Parts: sequence; C-alpha cells; structure tokens
Amino acid sequence: MPPHSIALAEYLFARLRQLGVDSIFGLPGDYNLKLLDYVTPAGAKWIGNCNELNAGYAADGYARIRGLGALVTTFGVGELSAVNAIAGSYAERVPVVHIVGTPPRQSQETRALIHHTFNDGEYDRFDRMQEHITVTQAIIKDHRTAPTEIDHALQQCLLHSRPVRITIPDDMVSLRVAAEGLAQKLTVPAPIPQPEVEQQALRLVLDRIYRSQKPMILVDGESRAFGILDEVDRIVKATQWPTFTSGFGKGLVNESLPNVHGVYTPAVKAFVDSCDLILSFGPHYSTTNSYQTATRPRSDVTIDVMGTQIKADTTIFRDLPAQQFLQQLLAELDVARIPSHAPVLPAPATLPTVSPSDPVSQTAGFWRKLSPFFKEGDIVLAETGTAGYGANDFTLPLHSRLFKPSTWLSIGYMLPAALGASLAQRDRIVQSEYYNLPRARTVLLIGDGSFQLTAQEMSTIIHHKLDVVVFLINNDGYTIERCIHGKDAGYNDITPWRYLQAPSFFGAPQEGEYAAHTSTIRNWGDLDSVLADNNLVEGKGIRMVEVFMPKLDAPPILMGLLERQKTVEERKHTV
Amino acid sequence: MPPHSIALAEYLFARLRQLGVDSIFGLPGDYNLKLLDYVTPAGAKWIGNCNELNAGYAADGYARIRGLGALVTTFGVGELSAVNAIAGSYAERVPVVHIVGTPPRQSQETRALIHHTFNDGEYDRFDRMQEHITVTQAIIKDHRTAPTEIDHALQQCLLHSRPVRITIPDDMVSLRVAAEGLAQKLTVPAPIPQPEVEQQALRLVLDRIYRSQKPMILVDGESRAFGILDEVDRIVKATQWPTFTSGFGKGLVNESLPNVHGVYTPAVKAFVDSCDLILSFGPHYSTTNSYQTATRPRSDVTIDVMGTQIKADTTIFRDLPAQQFLQQLLAELDVARIPSHAPVLPAPATLPTVSPSDPVSQTAGFWRKLSPFFKEGDIVLAETGTAGYGANDFTLPLHSRLFKPSTWLSIGYMLPAALGASLAQRDRIVQSEYYNLPRARTVLLIGDGSFQLTAQEMSTIIHHKLDVVVFLINNDGYTIERCIHGKDAGYNDITPWRYLQAPSFFGAPQEGEYAAHTSTIRNWGDLDSVLADNNLVEGKGIRMVEVFMPKLDAPPILMGLLERQKTVEERKHTV
Repeated sequence: MPPHSIALAEYLFARLRQLGVDSIFGLPGDYNLKLLDYVTPAGAKWIGNCNELNAGYAADGYARIRGLGALVTTFGVGELSAVNAIAGSYAERVPVVHIVGTPPRQSQETRALIHHTFNDGEYDRFDRMQEHITVTQAIIKDHRTAPTEIDHALQQCLLHSRPVRITIPDDMVSLRVAAEGLAQKLTVPAPIPQPEVEQQALRLVLDRIYRSQKPMILVDGESRAFGILDEVDRIVKATQWPTFTSGFGKGLVNESLPNVHGVYTPAVKAFVDSCDLILSFGPHYSTTNSYQTATRPRSDVTIDVMGTQIKADTTIFRDLPAQQFLQQLLAELDVARIPSHAPVLPAPATLPTVSPSDPVSQTAGFWRKLSPFFKEGDIVLAETGTAGYGANDFTLPLHSRLFKPSTWLSIGYMLPAALGASLAQRDRIVQSEYYNLPRARTVLLIGDGSFQLTAQEMSTIIHHKLDVVVFLINNDGYTIERCIHGKDAGYNDITPWRYLQAPSFFGAPQEGEYAAHTSTIRNWGDLDSVLADNNLVEGKGIRMVEVFMPKLDAPPILMGLLERQKTVEERKHTV
Repeated sequence: MPPHSIALAEYLFARLRQLGVDSIFGLPGDYNLKLLDYVTPAGAKWIGNCNELNAGYAADGYARIRGLGALVTTFGVGELSAVNAIAGSYAERVPVVHIVGTPPRQSQETRALIHHTFNDGEYDRFDRMQEHITVTQAIIKDHRTAPTEIDHALQQCLLHSRPVRITIPDDMVSLRVAAEGLAQKLTVPAPIPQPEVEQQALRLVLDRIYRSQKPMILVDGESRAFGILDEVDRIVKATQWPTFTSGFGKGLVNESLPNVHGVYTPAVKAFVDSCDLILSFGPHYSTTNSYQTATRPRSDVTIDVMGTQIKADTTIFRDLPAQQFLQQLLAELDVARIPSHAPVLPAPATLPTVSPSDPVSQTAGFWRKLSPFFKEGDIVLAETGTAGYGANDFTLPLHSRLFKPSTWLSIGYMLPAALGASLAQRDRIVQSEYYNLPRARTVLLIGDGSFQLTAQEMSTIIHHKLDVVVFLINNDGYTIERCIHGKDAGYNDITPWRYLQAPSFFGAPQEGEYAAHTSTIRNWGDLDSVLADNNLVEGKGIRMVEVFMPKLDAPPILMGLLERQKTVEERKHTV
C-alpha cells in the first residue's frame, strides 16, 4: 500500500498546529499566496500584519507565551524586513519559525530576472544572510525529503529555542508528500541518561547545597527557553531560600511567595555578595540584564543551570538537559539537610510625598504605583527605554508574565509583541490548557519614541478585538538616549503626534463594547482616577492612556547616568 | 609640518556634503549618538525618521534625485531593520551610504556581552549579512587608514551606483584623522581611453546606425545610475528617432518631445518588432520592467549601452564607461547619414464615456485622467501595485521625475521615498543647481495596503513642512495580489483605517498655511473638483486625497490576470 500523502503546505501547517501554533502571522506576497491558501484549512488563524518586521515581532511575542510562533513572508522584500525581529528571537532564545514563500524552481534554475531579486540571477543571497540568525534552515527542493527536513528544522527550533527558516518554492506548495510523520506530534528527543557525568554533577550540586550556609536562588530569563519553570518553582518552594530574578527572569517565578524578593538590583548587591551559594537558573548575563555586570553573580559561589550544562565556576558538566537534571535533583534533594536563613535586605526606597496636583514622574515612583493595576494572568510588556527599567520596580500578580528589554533591545518591538502575546493568551484561554483567566489583559507600557516605530500594528490589535491596555509615556522623545548621551540634542527629539487619536485612526469602533477608551494622565490625581476607571480596568478591546512625563525624568538608575553626563558637560564648560 | 587633522566623523560628513548629501536620515541609538553630534556642525540637516526601514527608503528616494543619499543607524537592531531598503537600492542601482555606529572597540575585542548582540561575543555577524547587499564595506578600525577607507567606499558607491556600508566604533568618532583628502572633492576616476576597443565599438555602432532603416531608441532606468541622461537627451533630439522608455526609464526623457512616445507596452510591440535597430540605454530587463519579458527587445537588433559595456547581440565591448562612449559617439555622429522614419503606432485606447456621478475606476482611465494634475518639476511616486502599473498611462511634464516599481517592488517603499525625494527636491531648489521650480511638489500615488506598512513616515513629511500630495487608493486591501492569486482570499484583506485622519494623528497643524488639507474622491465629478481645488494644487505642506475604488479594479493589463484567474476557477468548478 502506498503511503498516505498530503500537500506539502498541509504537512507544514499541520505540524505547527500540533505544536500549539494556532495563529500565524505575516503578509501576503506574490511568492507565498498559494502557501497562504493552506493556513485556514489547517485550522490556524491567519493574522495579517501591517508589515513584516511587525509580523516577526508578533510571532516572537506569541512564541514567548505559547512555546512556538510562526510567520510567513515572501522572498526577499518580505523576509528581509523581518530579519531584525528574527535576530532578536535568536538573541533572547525565542522559538520562531520563519516560513518564506520563494519563486518557482523554474525561475530559480533558469536564473530568471524576476522581481524581488537583484536582477542578476542570484537566488541564494537571502539564504546566506539568514543563516547568521537561525539555528538551521530547511531549503525545500525535493518532495521526498521535505517532511523530514521540516521536522528537523522544527525540532532544532524547539531544542535551541531559537529561530529557524523554512523556504518553500511556489510550485511545490501543493506537491504531495508522505503524511505518516503526522501520526506523532514532534518532540525534542528525550535525554538519554549519562550516568557518569550526571552523578558527578548531582553530587557536586547536592554537596554544595548541603554545605552552604547562606544560599540563594537567581532565576534568569533562559529558564523559559529550557522549559524548567515548573522545576524552578518547586525548588523555590521546597528550599524557601531567598530568591531573586534578573530583569529577564522577572515574571517567571511567583512573586507573591514570601521568599521571592523581586529583581536583583544593585540595592541588594551587598546581600547577594554575602551568600555562599547562588543557584542560577537559565543565566543570561548580558550587560543590560545585569546592570552593566554589577549584578552578575560571583562565579566562585554560583552554580549555573544552563540548557544542557551545569557550570560550577570553571567546572562544566555537559550533555545534561536542564529539565531532567533538575527533576533528578529534586528527587534526591533531602530537604532536612538544607540550610535556611532569613535575608537582611534594605527596605525599598521610600517614595517622596506627592499631592494629587503634582505632575506624575518616574523619579517619584510612577512604576511602583502601577502595581495595583495588574491582575492575575496579565501579560505586561515594558518597552526598551525608561519603561523597561521601570518594570523592575513593580510587583506582578500570580500567573502574569513580563516582557522587558534583556539583550536585543530593539525599540518598537513591544507593540507588535503585545499583539502576539495577546493572541497567544486568547488561544491559550480558549483551549484552557493551563488555567482559565478570561479577564486577563495584555498591558503595554511604551514611550512615545518607541511607539512611532511600529504604531500601525495597533490596527491589528483592534481588528482582532484583543484586550490590550496601552500606557503611552509622552516625554518628548528618546529619553533613554538622552540619559546616555545628548540630553538636549535635536537627534533625540521626535515629531509630536496626537497619540490618543491612534485608536480612531487605526479603525477602532466608535461605539459598542469594543469602542476605544482613551484617557490622559498628567498628575497623581489623574493616575488614581484612571486606575479606578472601570472602562479601563474591565473594558474590552483597545484602551489607551497617554501619560505626560517630564523630558528628563527616568527611573533613578537612569537619572544617575543623566547626572554623570551633566557633570561631564559642566566640567567641559568650566574648563 | 604635520598634516592638518580633523575628527573622523567630521571627515565622513564633510565628504558626504561635498557630494551633495545635505540631508541625512536615520535614528539615534546607543552606538551612534556621538556620531550624530557631528551631523549638524557639518552643515547637514538631520532627518530623524520613525524607523530604520523608513530611513533606508528615504535615503534611497533622496539619492535617486540628488545622486547620493545617506542614513545613520545603530549596530544590530538599527541596521538590520534597514536591510530591505538597502537591498532595494542594490537591486535598482541607487547609491546609498549606510553608516552604522558600532560598539566601542574595547567591547568588541573583549567579546563583552553587551546589548544589541546575541549575548555570545560575536560581533561580525552583521558585517557578514550586509556584504550580500553592498558593493563594499569600510569596517573602520585604524585612524591612519580611515580616510582612504571611507573614500574607497564612497567611490565604489558612486561607481556602481549601489549601496556601501561604513561602520564606525563609538570610541573612534572623535579620533583625529588626516584632513588633506578633503581639499579635493571625491570623484569617480576619469576613464582612460582604450583606443582599440573604443574604435571597434564606435565603428560597429555607427555602422549599424547608418545601415538601419527603421531605428528606435529605448531608454531604461539604469541610464540614471550611469549618469548618461544628458547624452541620451542629446541623442533623442539629434536623431529624432521614435523613442520609448521602459517603466523604469519613464520620467528620464522629456515626454513632450514629438518623437517620445511614452512607455513601451505590449500595445506597441508590433512596431518595436518591426524596427531593425534598437539603441537601448541603461537596460534593466527584469520581468516587471518588461511586461513579463514581452517587451524585452529582440537581442539581434539591439545595442545595449550599459555601465561599462556596449553589447550588440553576442558581441560585448568592455571597459567603456557609458558617458564617455556616448560623448564620443555624439562627436562622430553624422546626422546627415542617419535614417528617419515616422512610426505607425496604434492610437491610445479610447476611454469609456463616463458621467460625473459614475464611480471612478482604473478600468475607466483614472490614471490617464490624472495627467493634467502634474506640474513642471514634480516628482511623482507610484507605489508597487495598481498605482505602479497605472503610472505607465499618464504623461509627465518637463523636469519631472517618476518613481515606480521596477524590480525590487517592496511595498511600503514609496511613502518614505517621497519624504527623501521631497527633501532632495528642496535641497536642490535651495541651491538652484539645476533649475528653480519652487512650486514643484512631490506627488505620492499609493494603495491602502502599501500605505499601512510605513504610514508613520508621513509625520516626518509633516514635521519638515514638505510639499507632498498623497492620493491614497482605498480599494479594500491588496488588489494587486488579488489579481495574481486569491482574489477573494482573506489574506488579501487589510484592517480598514480612517485614512484621512492620518495628517491630524501625525501632528499636522490645525490651522495656518501648513494646515493639512484632505478630500475624498468617489466619482468622476469629485475627481474634477478635487483637481481644480486650489488648496490641493497650490497649497503647502501635506495634502491628502482618499480615492475610493472597487476592490477588483485595476489597470487593464492587470485585469487580464484577474480574468485568467476567474477562468481557471470557473473551469475548476465546472469540471
């Protein structure tokens, strides 16, 4: 009996659906139209974006919540517009599948001078460009191997939690391929026990745990990528050790537990430095994620639990996938033998007393005062800039998630990411796979400068009736850059927009339950009334708040940079 | 005496200014802030864009008018967002200088895990990606060779009329470099006479000219890149031969001359095929630029005048830069010996009779009826899609220029390109280098789908008080894609916006001479009154017209594709 066969595109989208990809992002283009014919029949929603960079960002946002995201672009013009997003997924370990519809093989083989090429017959330039930002590429050319090539790419995507690219020539879309692979959902192969190295690593880690007197836990952002959030949660609860996160790790542990103390900032460095053991999960020690290395833990007391390695200072045990290792550790851990200690931590800085008529400012604690707004299950996105730093200051409720700048820091990312995250939130709720939080919202905190890069994607949020609340910080330009250099420079200015007209311009209904709700915050009194406004808190669809802040106002850690800059300038002027 | 020295960034921007770059596009980012300190002091205007793709498109638009354009982005996140624009400049031969501010050498050399990297210490990935879309890169690392490396890159940019990339580490910006090179403006080296090949080529071309009975001229878009527009103009006038342009070449010859007959469309193929000599200037035979090769001229009767080659069928004479060759040809050409003939061309298709209350449509001649709107010196941009095809139908006045889809066809390009072109127009008028047409405007013809990709750049047009008229075709989505495939498919739909709110949202003044002027066209009566509206025709700043058109309406050539698609579907349904 010949094997059951299906169309190549059907195979691809079926595979993605099996892996939880229920919404697919992208734009149509001449070389992917036939491919797109297969999206809806596969049971996936097609989310047409405004441009490909935004589609890439949205797929990344989706993947951070759902575990996998996908976008479809067209050859050349489409895919190149998305590369910055793909590179960001690579940098911050997000599993995104970039599917590119390429010209028919006939055009490629005859080196035809078609559009979206360089008019020179070269068709493989884009493959070469994209190999730097993907872990593998499936350049499909033969129907016999297409299914295994697709499977290989998807598996690599999951394994490394990083992007892959799959190209499908326009003339191969409907080609029949073997379907039997679909009988089983694709998974990352189970780890094979490595008795020798496993035992060495376990013994070392347990020994260090039992011998420690002042241990602590640091949860970093790659914990999500390596699927160890449940294990980390169990360890945090079992040990009751003082636990901090990096900025990247914030939102990945339950902040309401008594032993979880928020982000490891320089304010608590003295305590951290006094610890004799730091279990560091999913470490990602980039400068942005470590206060310019100030909060990078001392390697001599740190045990890093990485993707497939356990690293204790200079000793590295390889080939130990993190999840299995932690499960073994939990199984062997004798809680009676572990130390406990109560950390002495500095009290949070007191906020200045303000009156309702005082202008809101970050210096006076805007971000911390936003905490009560967040609800269980919310996804909060704090854009690169002052919002991203501010996010370290607020407290998140249970089952919430936070997106904040970690390493890639591409401004403009967060708005399309909010689209993707919100869709993933809805897809997840619909399926009730995890928990049912139908009132959870997606909350975007974004500066005016960043908003301008990708503003149009608000229309897609509106189009799909997603429950997104936007706090737009209007502070006259790129305040974060002003803190770094050029505080009064013209190049840090932007064109002033009438921001609150955005929902109307982008097509929000003028009445009904999805009518856009907008409001303005200028002073602390406004903040109180806006946060108590039921339309904002419980409403549906897009809601937008414009928050006016001083141009040279930022979270205290950035104000330090600004002060230093001022001092340098004053010195120059007095010389 | 030691050589006079200046700051590295000063050298770079002075060089660009010498070459006519008076406006520089881009966005600030942590690694280019110090570089940006040098833009305004060099006498250039800093044009802060909304995002880097838009900056790349704007620089391309500027370069097509001024002869060179430049943008500044930041390492990684910034430059990758611009690559699609840079690739388009490569494909369509536009000289753009992409300047990237990179991290300090200290970070690079120590492989520091800083932001905008992949957190792995690799700093050269972006260099590798960008080499596929640039003719050369100057990766500056040593102050002694920096000036010659910059000069080399700029010269290659001019020589090939294609993009180059220059990277400057943050810590090198103010480093002193030798300044003496600046005493002389950079040029492409003059051609050295190549007596043997020159004479062979000249003899062949002249012989073919004198022997021909039915010669004609075809002007294509690379004529601009190779700087032969004056020579082509002289040849068109001297020979008085029937002259056509490709779509890419439209706007590069004076369409008011009696022997210039507009675009070579399939309608005049019979005449072209009857010619025994076709002088083809700046050929660019991509499928989009040749009606899917239908209007590619027969190679046995064609002489291609390319950048540095003269090609007569299979004979190629190399190393003959086009401008010098054409000057030699003009010097030797004996006009008394050349044939003349009057072409018999089909009359333009008659347009259907319409009444003022009939809805406007492309089928009924919308584009042709737009011709009277254009004024001397206007720059007209017709976006990829139905507008791009429609542009073949209208007539352009003297000194006007046209941007239309040729090969790269990246939708979203034209709006930021309109910004760049309009700035170049203003910079040119201010300098009165060419001619003084202070009332010339930039006219953008764009579909709703394309508009959504880069809409925010309208705010930069508004901010700089540029005189830009936008005709936005609202036809419910990607009509050009509907013509190709999926005429009713959901993926060819877009989110409906309230387009005419754009100027207000993007910050246009509410009163005064730069107040935005908007209007709507639904029927032919509206078209007449809008085109007669003095506020639109003579006003200042942004003016925007929303033109409602049927969803499945397109220029006749595309309607053919749509019909074919319908037929295929009907056949499927009846089988």
